Amino acid sequence: MVVGLGPGGAEGMTAGALEALGQAEVIVGYHVYIELIRDLIGSREVVSSGMTQELERCRQAVRLALSGKRVAVVSSGDPGVYGMAGLVLEVLEQAAPDSRLSVKIIPGVTAATAAAALLGAPLTHDFAVISLSDRLTPWDLIVRRLEMAARGDFVTVLYNPRSHGRQIQLRQAGEIFLKHRPSETPVGVVRNAGRDGEEVWVSNLQKFTGLPVDMLTTVIIGNSQTRILNGRLVTPRGYQT
Amino acid sequence: MVVGLGPGGAEGMTAGALEALGQAEVIVGYHVYIELIRDLIGSREVVSSGMTQELERCRQAVRLALSGKRVAVVSSGDPGVYGMAGLVLEVLEQAAPDSRLSVKIIPGVTAATAAAALLGAPLTHDFAVISLSDRLTPWDLIVRRLEMAARGDFVTVLYNPRSHGRQIQLRQAGEIFLKHRPSETPVGVVRNAGRDGEEVWVSNLQKFTGLPVDMLTTVIIGNSQTRILNGRLVTPRGYQT
Repeated sequence: MVVGLGPGGAEGMTAGALEALGQAEVIVGYHVYIELIRDLIGSREVVSSGMTQELERCRQAVRLALSGKRVAVVSSGDPGVYGMAGLVLEVLEQAAPDSRLSVKIIPGVTAATAAAALLGAPLTHDFAVISLSDRLTPWDLIVRRLEMAARGDFVTVLYNPRSHGRQIQLRQAGEIFLKHRPSETPVGVVRNAGRDGEEVWVSNLQKFTGLPVDMLTTVIIGNSQTRILNGRLVTPRGYQT
Repeated sequence: MVVGLGPGGAEGMTAGALEALGQAEVIVGYHVYIELIRDLIGSREVVSSGMTQELERCRQAVRLALSGKRVAVVSSGDPGVYGMAGLVLEVLEQAAPDSRLSVKIIPGVTAATAAAALLGAPLTHDFAVISLSDRLTPWDLIVRRLEMAARGDFVTVLYNPRSHGRQIQLRQAGEIFLKHRPSETPVGVVRNAGRDGEEVWVSNLQKFTGLPVDMLTTVIIGNSQTRILNGRLVTPRGYQT
């Protein structure tokens, strides 16, 4: 099983995710997420490791599952959105191409909609989701996607917007949108959605790159219709209302 | 409160959504969704109505809330993705611009990730979400977004893909993507995700419009990297692996 934990605490987890964790014999995950669900794990076997160890964790999980154990790989948010679901399926296919092992993926609340709910309702119309991490994706492809999202008037959600090692990408992203949208276009920024230290800012396209954006942050850039109502971001459902 | 019910049954609902429903004095929603949660409502007051009555339901909910009642407006999936969250905030702003009424939005698992989990892991890289309904959005804007999503190599999720009254939009969408992607590009189609009568098809760009796609269906069009592994759609996390 690949289990989405939602944005943070237990209140964001689905009943299906809780049930899947209850059934697992081994729980595999990034150590920070394992700590978030420590109370639910009890005395069961845990395989945890660091942030860049995703591939090795998936291999261990697949080995354990092929040996007959019921394994839950945990992933924050939704496991299919920049999460572990794809890697588990890829590793399984390489390790045992004809395996009949059943992999159940339990969806979760992804950071885009968790952040949107805290900001108001910025995603009520068409939107694009783009990761600014160029660790596994060429930067020129990411730039092309930012251009297309800006030109298509998509509300745009940025995952992995900035890290210690990646400072210029967010500024470049902002510049691309400034070519297509006014500088006062609303931008919402949420850090630690659903977790301790949650912070929510309503900003705009001119100013948002000055906020303390990091890897725990989700950025939502409004489109031409997004407005601020009572301090909250709202993109109307229709263009004809 | 605006509460996301997730894709269908109680197992897709978060603990936070269950808690919000438990606290509500009045529950407001589309009658089909009210039936899905009838067991959770008990004897409490319900305001339910039909599919095109969203605006009137929001007005009733806001009136009740301004009169002091604790109201939960329910919305399937995530209430911020083509859901009721935006409309509630808009109606409140019109009805009582200076109101201090607190509106809490409880996110849920949206159809895009619920469908993706059943198909495999098609959304593991950047994606766009587009509704094909031109009831409130000009069709030429929807076409522009489809073009931009296709040109940006976004995995693309189609909401509201086809209804009795809207038959040609899905075919046109398919034709736009066929200009930019090979006809064998994987396409996943999920009907009634998480509900009775759930159906999952793995198809391709040439053939998917022939499937029984309707308003209860979510369509996910793969990008240039999406593959079929053991019968499941997978978009790899990186372009450099």
